[in-house]
Amino acid sequence: MKIFCAIKLNSNEKEFLLKNIGNSEVIFQDELAIDPQKYFSNCNVCFGNIPRKWVEESTQLNWLQLESVGYDPYMDLTNRKVKISNLKGFFSIPVAESAVSGILSLMRGMNELALLKVKKEWVGAAMRPSLRMLEGSNVLILGAGAIGYQLKKLLSAFNCVVSFYAKFNTEAQYFSSEELSKAISEADVIIGCLPESLETIHLINEERLSLMKPTAIVVNVGRGSLIDDAALAQKLIDCSIAGAVLDVTPKEPLPEDHPFWNCPNTILSQHTGGGYEEEVLDKVKVFLKNLQPYINNEPLNNLIP
Amino acid sequence: MKIFCAIKLNSNEKEFLLKNIGNSEVIFQDELAIDPQKYFSNCNVCFGNIPRKWVEESTQLNWLQLESVGYDPYMDLTNRKVKISNLKGFFSIPVAESAVSGILSLMRGMNELALLKVKKEWVGAAMRPSLRMLEGSNVLILGAGAIGYQLKKLLSAFNCVVSFYAKFNTEAQYFSSEELSKAISEADVIIGCLPESLETIHLINEERLSLMKPTAIVVNVGRGSLIDDAALAQKLIDCSIAGAVLDVTPKEPLPEDHPFWNCPNTILSQHTGGGYEEEVLDKVKVFLKNLQPYINNEPLNNLIP
Repeated sequence: MKIFCAIKLNSNEKEFLLKNIGNSEVIFQDELAIDPQKYFSNCNVCFGNIPRKWVEESTQLNWLQLESVGYDPYMDLTNRKVKISNLKGFFSIPVAESAVSGILSLMRGMNELALLKVKKEWVGAAMRPSLRMLEGSNVLILGAGAIGYQLKKLLSAFNCVVSFYAKFNTEAQYFSSEELSKAISEADVIIGCLPESLETIHLINEERLSLMKPTAIVVNVGRGSLIDDAALAQKLIDCSIAGAVLDVTPKEPLPEDHPFWNCPNTILSQHTGGGYEEEVLDKVKVFLKNLQPYINNEPLNNLIP
Repeated sequence: MKIFCAIKLNSNEKEFLLKNIGNSEVIFQDELAIDPQKYFSNCNVCFGNIPRKWVEESTQLNWLQLESVGYDPYMDLTNRKVKISNLKGFFSIPVAESAVSGILSLMRGMNELALLKVKKEWVGAAMRPSLRMLEGSNVLILGAGAIGYQLKKLLSAFNCVVSFYAKFNTEAQYFSSEELSKAISEADVIIGCLPESLETIHLINEERLSLMKPTAIVVNVGRGSLIDDAALAQKLIDCSIAGAVLDVTPKEPLPEDHPFWNCPNTILSQHTGGGYEEEVLDKVKVFLKNLQPYINNEPLNNLIP
């Protein structure tokens, strides 16, 4: 078995992988000086996200373990031989914590306080009437996956009333386009954690943003394409909604001239939501755990449809 | 009955108070041009925090409803005639939310991200290994009052293991000085929400700060005197602990030359923890609710010992 390792590992993570992988040969992409696709083309297994084209052109590849939850670049492949597994559920705890952190930052003024500290400026009591509580908020979550359920768990402690929009999940409360619009108009906090598909692109468009309460906050920890970014920036600049927490944006890195940089009441968490110290090592562990059924010719975990 | 209103109310709040107070005469301190103590000295009831001296010198005052939870300025009065009630429990929800917001800000990098947004600087994936999760943390809460219990409720959703230090509360796990030191050495997050007394001043001193794990965070939402601020600033500057969330400080406003302003990984929330839009109106409601038993000569709520 030859394994192509496209995910970037540090020396400890490489050592851990090699110690636990048995006799298989491993090629680390970051150690190749030239033509990585040539080396890749001889491998049966790949760990890490490689260009779609490589998958399509490969004749040897049997299994691709992605280093992400999102698999939209690999949908509807003509190469039907390759099994692809993703990291379903892997990021739910850190992403949900980042989302709640962002919401609380806006409500409790933490982002503003961070700027005041740099300026050594004391505002104190004068800030208090501008603060709000998350307690008891009406929260609408778009997408009823692992992140959504983790969010519900955290937000329930704040006595939030949490409901889900999801087209094909019977545990959701809202399914249709009309139900979504009505739910948006009633929510205090709207959190997007949907995968990308043709139907989710700009699902939150100008019209739906206009339905939001002026006191409501919109959060996106799914895919940047969910929200019409030009329309959202305008709402934020006009203060016609109360704020936004954006872990994902249509382009990343966010271009320097993008209006989001200048929007008030906006937290740009720069796609760090899934991050934590042991993140990459834990990804290696997921790969190793899935390698066992692969070797034994048993069903793999988290195969994408 | 003559009521002296020392708490600063806006016109709506004054109107609400007057509409609900019946025939009593109300004197608003902020409408007096001169000598407020003279007007105060004729009143039987006071709403809001006035100088200790006024209480001591008053012959007419029967009841003082404080606008705070803290009552340390009014302890051991020689004037034993006055009943004093505080706002026990009033701030527990917003303060607990601010504390969790501050902890999550440090762990999920939100305070740093706020500064990057101002600079329009994208760091993105490079930040991820520096982030941490609150999930599963060992949290030690000093003080087992309303704020402590609200914190336990919120933190339990993050699967934190929460324990309490409190000298005289049987529901706490740690009571003695030795137990406190041991618990500090084991905690990932230490949250102070103790009232001020001779025993709590600098309870968190240099020695106890030195026992903290290098990865631990200290939070103070009680009284600024709890922590030796010079010692804490040094630990933060040396990065020998992971951070601090300080809603209260020994002096407020924090003097411009105080080292806290320059400490890394430090959130200064400027005593805004209890704040929210309807805060003052809700205080008026608490006063009005306590006015009924006062009028009926029944026991008042939240009398201080």
